[in-house]
Amino acid sequence: MGLGNMGFAMATNLARKGFRLTVHDLSPATVSRFLAQAPHARAGSLTEIATSPIVLTMLPGPAAVQHVYAELSRLGGIRRGALVVDSSTVDPMTARQVADKARSQQADAVDAPVSGGVGGAEQGTLTFMVGGPATAVERARPLLEAMGKKILHCGGPGTGQATKIANNLVLAVSMVGVSEAMNLGIKFGIDPKVLAGAINSSSGRCWSSDTYNPVPGVMENVPASRGYSGGFGSSLMKKDLWLALQAAQETKAPLPLASAAHQLYALMTSDPSAPEKDFSSVFEFLQGHK
Amino acid sequence: MGLGNMGFAMATNLARKGFRLTVHDLSPATVSRFLAQAPHARAGSLTEIATSPIVLTMLPGPAAVQHVYAELSRLGGIRRGALVVDSSTVDPMTARQVADKARSQQADAVDAPVSGGVGGAEQGTLTFMVGGPATAVERARPLLEAMGKKILHCGGPGTGQATKIANNLVLAVSMVGVSEAMNLGIKFGIDPKVLAGAINSSSGRCWSSDTYNPVPGVMENVPASRGYSGGFGSSLMKKDLWLALQAAQETKAPLPLASAAHQLYALMTSDPSAPEKDFSSVFEFLQGHK
Amino acid sequence: MGLGNMGFAMATNLARKGFRLTVHDLSPATVSRFLAQAPHARAGSLTEIATSPIVLTMLPGPAAVQHVYAELSRLGGIRRGALVVDSSTVDPMTARQVADKARSQQADAVDAPVSGGVGGAEQGTLTFMVGGPATAVERARPLLEAMGKKILHCGGPGTGQATKIANNLVLAVSMVGVSEAMNLGIKFGIDPKVLAGAINSSSGRCWSSDTYNPVPGVMENVPASRGYSGGFGSSLMKKDLWLALQAAQETKAPLPLASAAHQLYALMTSDPSAPEKDFSSVFEFLQGHK
Amino acid sequence: MGLGNMGFAMATNLARKGFRLTVHDLSPATVSRFLAQAPHARAGSLTEIATSPIVLTMLPGPAAVQHVYAELSRLGGIRRGALVVDSSTVDPMTARQVADKARSQQADAVDAPVSGGVGGAEQGTLTFMVGGPATAVERARPLLEAMGKKILHCGGPGTGQATKIANNLVLAVSMVGVSEAMNLGIKFGIDPKVLAGAINSSSGRCWSSDTYNPVPGVMENVPASRGYSGGFGSSLMKKDLWLALQAAQETKAPLPLASAAHQLYALMTSDPSAPEKDFSSVFEFLQGHK
Repeated sequence: MGLGNMGFAMATNLARKGFRLTVHDLSPATVSRFLAQAPHARAGSLTEIATSPIVLTMLPGPAAVQHVYAELSRLGGIRRGALVVDSSTVDPMTARQVADKARSQQADAVDAPVSGGVGGAEQGTLTFMVGGPATAVERARPLLEAMGKKILHCGGPGTGQATKIANNLVLAVSMVGVSEAMNLGIKFGIDPKVLAGAINSSSGRCWSSDTYNPVPGVMENVPASRGYSGGFGSSLMKKDLWLALQAAQETKAPLPLASAAHQLYALMTSDPSAPEKDFSSVFEFLQGHK
Repeated sequence: MGLGNMGFAMATNLARKGFRLTVHDLSPATVSRFLAQAPHARAGSLTEIATSPIVLTMLPGPAAVQHVYAELSRLGGIRRGALVVDSSTVDPMTARQVADKARSQQADAVDAPVSGGVGGAEQGTLTFMVGGPATAVERARPLLEAMGKKILHCGGPGTGQATKIANNLVLAVSMVGVSEAMNLGIKFGIDPKVLAGAINSSSGRCWSSDTYNPVPGVMENVPASRGYSGGFGSSLMKKDLWLALQAAQETKAPLPLASAAHQLYALMTSDPSAPEKDFSSVFEFLQGHK
Repeated sequence: MGLGNMGFAMATNLARKGFRLTVHDLSPATVSRFLAQAPHARAGSLTEIATSPIVLTMLPGPAAVQHVYAELSRLGGIRRGALVVDSSTVDPMTARQVADKARSQQADAVDAPVSGGVGGAEQGTLTFMVGGPATAVERARPLLEAMGKKILHCGGPGTGQATKIANNLVLAVSMVGVSEAMNLGIKFGIDPKVLAGAINSSSGRCWSSDTYNPVPGVMENVPASRGYSGGFGSSLMKKDLWLALQAAQETKAPLPLASAAHQLYALMTSDPSAPEKDFSSVFEFLQGHK
Repeated sequence: MGLGNMGFAMATNLARKGFRLTVHDLSPATVSRFLAQAPHARAGSLTEIATSPIVLTMLPGPAAVQHVYAELSRLGGIRRGALVVDSSTVDPMTARQVADKARSQQADAVDAPVSGGVGGAEQGTLTFMVGGPATAVERARPLLEAMGKKILHCGGPGTGQATKIANNLVLAVSMVGVSEAMNLGIKFGIDPKVLAGAINSSSGRCWSSDTYNPVPGVMENVPASRGYSGGFGSSLMKKDLWLALQAAQETKAPLPLASAAHQLYALMTSDPSAPEKDFSSVFEFLQGHK
């Protein structure tokens, strides 16, 4: 349940692979649009979801996840022995609460956030970072393999979320680092493609530089080369960094650079009238041409 | 000239490949040690260096480079039409001053800092990031190929230095980012090897994670797995970040994360009695086991 | 209710001034100790608290406040028309939730966090920063004046908390700034008293420098001059900065320096075996003598 | 010598108090303008300056100071036994070099940077932070008292500069902190004057809040209340923070917050087409109304 951009594409893949789905979303129009292309699926109320043998959720954040699972509990709780898969991106503490709720019903639960974006969801090539007991993960595997290509079992409950957060932290920090370096080098007259090539063949090599370079014109088919449209929005990256900071506050882990990157995205998104841009637009922000 | 750890190994390769060297170093003992293993080389005064057809310098920083080239000027200047190669790591402004001095003598000059460390210098597998006019770079190429494997022509005078600084900026920032992420994930009970594997197959992938991981035990043969000994010291990384900040001050390029990383290395090295450790020991610093 | 260091001293003042108190604390020993010195007070259960005409809480943080007011609701809710005063330091959002709960019972509520520390609580010289409707504030005034000297009405519900958080943010940032400046100046050989005097008579003048200087020996009777004991602990300052960051996340206010200060306190408190020190010990941390 | 906004006003006060001046500036027009209002002064070449019994310089930064004193040396050096007063704001290392040059001529030298701005210079109410031997300071005192109200002897050569830099570091950091706090509080609906009043009567009290508040309308006669015009420009504050970072690099003093503030001013001034504003405009920058 949850048929946003990601959930819609993921459920479409499940339907195509023959899973029999009962879907739910706050927007009836979205449900209708989904059913129009997945004739064997049906719409269901929250109560029907609660009694399903498998519950799969794809929701926008911790508050939504907490709300939905509280509702499911109120409606009699998840069916005993069910399998619960939450693919939303939330903090590890929330994931553990969902797991605790499931365990109290002898249900199996995994947290299984994804990476790969809407494109990966549509093509069924997502990576799932999965937290939970081995038996639950094995039980979820066929479902996950219908939607993704790589299933990484990271450890106990919450570790799927913690892994996703940790990865995105490195992503944000290295993206800002690459943007700072490219801006600096360009000011010294270095051709951006030459500079990116040098970094990519040296110890600065990273995904943010060799796969998603933030400088317009260095690579084709990345947001930087289409006005920073599409991709992963700056305010989403700010949200993921905030999840990292919350997790760090809980565990007393210092995050000096992630925290500085979070503030930078806060500055970038502080003008509510500015249109949302891909998170690689931090390059443009550092350049100062506003 | 300049027979430190790096310069010694580089000159050794040149001697082996048949270059006839006149060497100079502040330490006569080092010069003797070099000559003992390079029988066709000879020691020379600064005046003799000044009159050589090719001048190659490998010095500890901007102050040393400025001092040596000022001395060479005082001693009558570099020979007309000579080739000057400075492989020291300095700021781009200093590199341009050296280039200007050389040009006033109709000499060709390139700035050619290296990456690859002492190991790369010994095995002749260094990467040279080279700034200067194309003719000067071509003239220097045989010399550089005798010491390294990859010769990257980055642009005009100073761009070799700017490229090196930009690369090391990304390196420092991503190393701190990886250390923050690994420390956070480990606190949530994730096995460090599993976490590193997840990051390496996702958008956080970077050299600091997949080639030089900062967590003890994740990889063999990296400083983290031998008590952070060897490698590239924290105070050297602090120095390179300072070069980036100086270059940024000159060109008005903001460096929020590089600057935060610089301060972190300042904190790490603020205890003068603590032994120097590899820059990946930032992981240990964040962990708080002092 | 809540008889920690602060609450104990505040309740003692209320008892002395003739208020008839029903007290509650998780620790029965603390309650006994309080009753031994306040003969006209009595102990009461949460249910008795819920039915009091005035409810005053002094609790360690948002989680405790949310828990206690949820319990009070469960036990039948606050008495209709009561006055609710929460002097805990929490985020403005939590304060607004308490106010909403009170309003649903036609009760008056104010958030009234304090500054002045244990000393101020004992001497009855606290400053109260008060948020709520004017009528509620006037109703609370006699109570607050029995415990403090200055009652600042800041605005509607939550603004008392927001003001306290804003003040402590400036406090933390200026304390770190003063510590950086003093450490730097001392390294240039300036006598710390002379340096503090110069700052105090110039545009760097601030409470952290002229009233609570972080350098040992500059002032008497401050934590810095007794090994950073007593005072306001680094982990408490870290907690207040976290409240600021949470409030900022909610309202999209960038906090680049508060965030950097928060990380510094995270680093300072990352070694769980180190004893807690006053927040001015950031000076010592920057000095690097560990 | 040096008749910029500051130097012009300072020299005017000296002339009024009866000092017989020989003035020098790169701009002949400025010299003429000065002589028109100071009939007993005369213009002089650098050679004449070099042979004066007292040399007073007020120059824009380290490069200018190094250049002028190198020129004076080249022209035969400062007169033996002269008094040298440099009121430029430079790094302590440069101040020490000037002092060393003076000492080699048996001259007395003090570094005597000022605070108080153009207004203070015009009214003769500057504060001088003075570094140098006590005898030199006493010799300079009548001169300084003709231009300022407060003469602070900070210690040996360079300590005047180090004190000024330390003070401005605290100023910048507390200004950003106040701006963050005010912006946060205002977003919670607190009246800015009430919030400033609360901070000013509590532990966040500082010059940036009670004398130079950055929020438009809180105080009269500050840059914030006239569109951030006049005052002390953001790029000047960036320059002073850079002097602090250079001094810190030299002495291995960590400056995490000063460094973050420096980057913030770098971001604020990264758009070369934007007009220069007072450094308190960081409030506006955080607000995100661009």
